[in-house]
Amino acid sequence: MNTRNQTAPEGVGRYPTEITADPDVPGVRIERTFDATPEQLMRAHTDPELVVRWLGPRDLTMTIDRWDARTGGEYRYVHSRGDEEYGFHGCFHEVGANRIVQTFTFEGYPDGVSLETITFTDLGDGRTKLEAFSIVDSFAARDMMLASGMETGVEQGYEQIEELLAEGAL
Amino acid sequence: MNTRNQTAPEGVGRYPTEITADPDVPGVRIERTFDATPEQLMRAHTDPELVVRWLGPRDLTMTIDRWDARTGGEYRYVHSRGDEEYGFHGCFHEVGANRIVQTFTFEGYPDGVSLETITFTDLGDGRTKLEAFSIVDSFAARDMMLASGMETGVEQGYEQIEELLAEGAL
Repeated sequence: MNTRNQTAPEGVGRYPTEITADPDVPGVRIERTFDATPEQLMRAHTDPELVVRWLGPRDLTMTIDRWDARTGGEYRYVHSRGDEEYGFHGCFHEVGANRIVQTFTFEGYPDGVSLETITFTDLGDGRTKLEAFSIVDSFAARDMMLASGMETGVEQGYEQIEELLAEGAL
Repeated sequence: MNTRNQTAPEGVGRYPTEITADPDVPGVRIERTFDATPEQLMRAHTDPELVVRWLGPRDLTMTIDRWDARTGGEYRYVHSRGDEEYGFHGCFHEVGANRIVQTFTFEGYPDGVSLETITFTDLGDGRTKLEAFSIVDSFAARDMMLASGMETGVEQGYEQIEELLAEGAL
């Protein structure tokens, strides 16, 4: 059951989400601070019952097909909206204490594969900095990734993590 | 049991192995032609009983710890020489008909992860072209990969594939 809010409740979104194209390599970097511990953000990213509640834009429903968030595991999920369905899959290269390294493919463009590294750094004051870096094999593929409208999904996703934090679900 | 030859038999090594640093992105490209079908090269790369007979330099013994060569699977192996042991692991993002996409980490440097795409193209005359492209997240990491002495292992590995072909093992 998808219990997503369709708009952000008051107070959610206090930290900016920075999405930048790397100047030297075909990668995209995302940075965001949360009022959370690294452990809470790891749970948000690895527990499938939590992941479906935040990953992606608010107006999509997420259904998990496969989910084995451990080093050497794999995942597949589908985002849907009405009759539209978008499949994604990849494997987990590493699920560590404060770092996840995984591959990612949008099944609408199966030739494209990105390698994503997500790290959670404890800022020591109750906050944690999330850094995600996704690299692909060409600048053309990177520009396609940036042109896909990913900002909306990333921003709304992180707001939904804040909502899970606010309601004590993490 | 490791049944590797310590030197290349006569006739092996007729095709050059080209290893080049990509000029634009932090990747390394490898190209090599084989007198083989794409199916034979896929078997060489996916069947663990065959992989241990060719992957890496001649003077190393390869022992497989985990090997599940399917989309979403994972692997871990150890190369050893006397008392030296070198572990490697990763996950298989895709094991397709003519393409393998996998991650790769040398456990001596666990922060480093590369994303490797290997394609087998049928040249239509009994030969197949292997192309491997490995991308990492920085040019510094790419230069470290090139400085690691990978050429010897790659070249001797491909010679050992030719030897498997010559003896009908593929």
